[in-house]
Amino acid sequence: MKSLVIAQSGGPTAAINATLTGIVERALTCGEVDKIYGARYGVKGLIKNELVEIGEILSNPDSLNRLIHTPSASLGSCRVKLGAPEKCPADYEAMFNSLSSCGAKWFICIGGNDSMDTVAKLSDYSKAKGLDISIMGAPKTVDNDLCGMDHSPGFGSAAKYIATTFSELWCDCRVYDIPAVTIVEVMGRHVGWLTASAVMSKEGSPAPQLIYMPEIPFDNARFIKDIKAELEKNPAVLIAVSEGIRYENGSFVGEASQSGITDIFGHKYLTGAARVLEELLRAEVGCKARSIVLSLMQRCAGHLASSNDLTEARLLGATAFDRALKGHSGEVAVINRISDDPYRVSYSAISANEIANKERAIPRKWINERGNGVTDEMICYLKPLIYGGFGSEIRNGLPVHIEF
Amino acid sequence: MKSLVIAQSGGPTAAINATLTGIVERALTCGEVDKIYGARYGVKGLIKNELVEIGEILSNPDSLNRLIHTPSASLGSCRVKLGAPEKCPADYEAMFNSLSSCGAKWFICIGGNDSMDTVAKLSDYSKAKGLDISIMGAPKTVDNDLCGMDHSPGFGSAAKYIATTFSELWCDCRVYDIPAVTIVEVMGRHVGWLTASAVMSKEGSPAPQLIYMPEIPFDNARFIKDIKAELEKNPAVLIAVSEGIRYENGSFVGEASQSGITDIFGHKYLTGAARVLEELLRAEVGCKARSIVLSLMQRCAGHLASSNDLTEARLLGATAFDRALKGHSGEVAVINRISDDPYRVSYSAISANEIANKERAIPRKWINERGNGVTDEMICYLKPLIYGGFGSEIRNGLPVHIEF
Repeated sequence: MKSLVIAQSGGPTAAINATLTGIVERALTCGEVDKIYGARYGVKGLIKNELVEIGEILSNPDSLNRLIHTPSASLGSCRVKLGAPEKCPADYEAMFNSLSSCGAKWFICIGGNDSMDTVAKLSDYSKAKGLDISIMGAPKTVDNDLCGMDHSPGFGSAAKYIATTFSELWCDCRVYDIPAVTIVEVMGRHVGWLTASAVMSKEGSPAPQLIYMPEIPFDNARFIKDIKAELEKNPAVLIAVSEGIRYENGSFVGEASQSGITDIFGHKYLTGAARVLEELLRAEVGCKARSIVLSLMQRCAGHLASSNDLTEARLLGATAFDRALKGHSGEVAVINRISDDPYRVSYSAISANEIANKERAIPRKWINERGNGVTDEMICYLKPLIYGGFGSEIRNGLPVHIEF
Repeated sequence: MKSLVIAQSGGPTAAINATLTGIVERALTCGEVDKIYGARYGVKGLIKNELVEIGEILSNPDSLNRLIHTPSASLGSCRVKLGAPEKCPADYEAMFNSLSSCGAKWFICIGGNDSMDTVAKLSDYSKAKGLDISIMGAPKTVDNDLCGMDHSPGFGSAAKYIATTFSELWCDCRVYDIPAVTIVEVMGRHVGWLTASAVMSKEGSPAPQLIYMPEIPFDNARFIKDIKAELEKNPAVLIAVSEGIRYENGSFVGEASQSGITDIFGHKYLTGAARVLEELLRAEVGCKARSIVLSLMQRCAGHLASSNDLTEARLLGATAFDRALKGHSGEVAVINRISDDPYRVSYSAISANEIANKERAIPRKWINERGNGVTDEMICYLKPLIYGGFGSEIRNGLPVHIEF
């Protein structure tokens, strides 16, 4: 009896289940897998031996189709950062007991930075113990901050949600002739890839007029000057800011107003960057200002998923399992861009250690000189990633999702 | 020379331009209209004589198609509440000068409560002055609070966005096994129709487990009890609250934490209802809690527009202009439901005075006894309104909008 075990880990994206689909598709067709299991809530499911048989339900093609378009992680996830084996030997023993008790010959973990660290650690451990199991990683993150690949699965769909939302918000914001600034806060604590993707809504519209990313230190005075200049051109100004923009001294803009402010329960308010800037504009420019936080919607909008993203995510899953079948271990499947136009990519794998615990920021030359927008290189990079129509299966006017 | 003038007024929805399309389609085909003008920024455009010729661009069928799927008000809008003629005679004179200078024989205003008041006032004024012009209203509002009709155009699309978003947020929220409450704040200062529409995401999922609407006085203790009961059943709890929920004494929940809280600039924080409840749960239940505000996205998500809503909005525009052609004035086109299943409606018109300055709340029997959810009557009512696939024209993976 030879089993495949799959886990999903880290924060949700609209493409994690597409990668799961790709792995399962290869497992169903390769003729070498007897059972397919999913670990509940990431590596927690391995530690607690909570495995669920998913091969049977996914032998139904309709369920496979539905899985691709279901956002987030259908197996559940966790945010566990696994320690070294000498620090938590019981966890490692429990995990490999779970794997061996179901006859696992292959284990694939779909996740981000931390999960690729887990892949490296588990693979090293199994090799050291002489265990006959291949452990591979498949990447995912909306942040697009993984090294060693052209882009991360999940990013394109989030970027498409953001660009679509900006294009619609612009229709809303420009409806009145009263000067008003709308500040939209986008995910990205350390890198500005998602915020930069707002630029894709610009085709045929001037918005977003300004884009601020964490890669460039934020300056209140320069910001106010930028806004005043835009208000001269158009009464409606729509701008994008990363949640993680910081001042030169390293402090987050979103922390600026936290000092001393408490609610009725005596708690500190954790104010977002957009909210802080909204108050700043009201005080310093005196214009109408409002802030919007795109929150979880940007990472789970499956109905707006990019079809390029879903296809790539699926094929990266297939790549990861293919390598596992060939006995590779401790690697992560990656996507490489061959050309922008026509858009062409290839799939390969690199060592998990090359990805783990690293972070990729936007190259400086993809951000404009003033630090309040992006260059054509960025647009060229983003364009193919958001490609495709709207893909969810619709029933009674709403997207249909799968649940295990 | 006989002209038609159209204005759009009030807050954006995803269906206002569909109503404009319906009016223009009838004007293009009836053989009686020489020119079609749009007033810039609602009645402001009439007062300032800012009219734009739109018949030419919309004689291109592709532009007409694009207009239907462009959210918000392409002509611009305003939030002017017109006074009585004796209070502002100069405004009335200016408006009718604009209309007569372009040869207007028909004026249609697409708008909500206040705009229907404007329709009544302008129609009475023109009749009193013996002017040869028909003035009609076509309704719109995401709030669904207009009297005299089964539902308001724009509401179904907003409801579809909300239900879709809840179904995706549920995929995101249930990903971890840690107890956590996600509170989503939905538009609705006085009525809970939009918040209630979150229930439509329930097909196949338990969420939203609780729905709080302004029609029922809010009670902190009862709320905490509801949440604790839900956390017993499922670690992930997703709930919907109207921005306008109030306590028994009439004060908004969203005002509760405003007293005394100021930001670094000394301004009062205007905290939303969801944020207040988030802090309440953290303090009183001790669970993980987060709040999300759907903000402008819920009223301008054209890519998620309900095709039933767009079609009805278009036909209401046609109805309004048809009545104007027949010499009616001071009326508003309305939609009447004939049956739920199969869903059938009819179009007619009623006096603008029956709609102006009135507000329709949810019937008490459509809300459950405990006041934290809705009944089957509500689901039956909502179901046909969110019908349809995703309709925007897509170019390079994004919706395409029209701009005048």
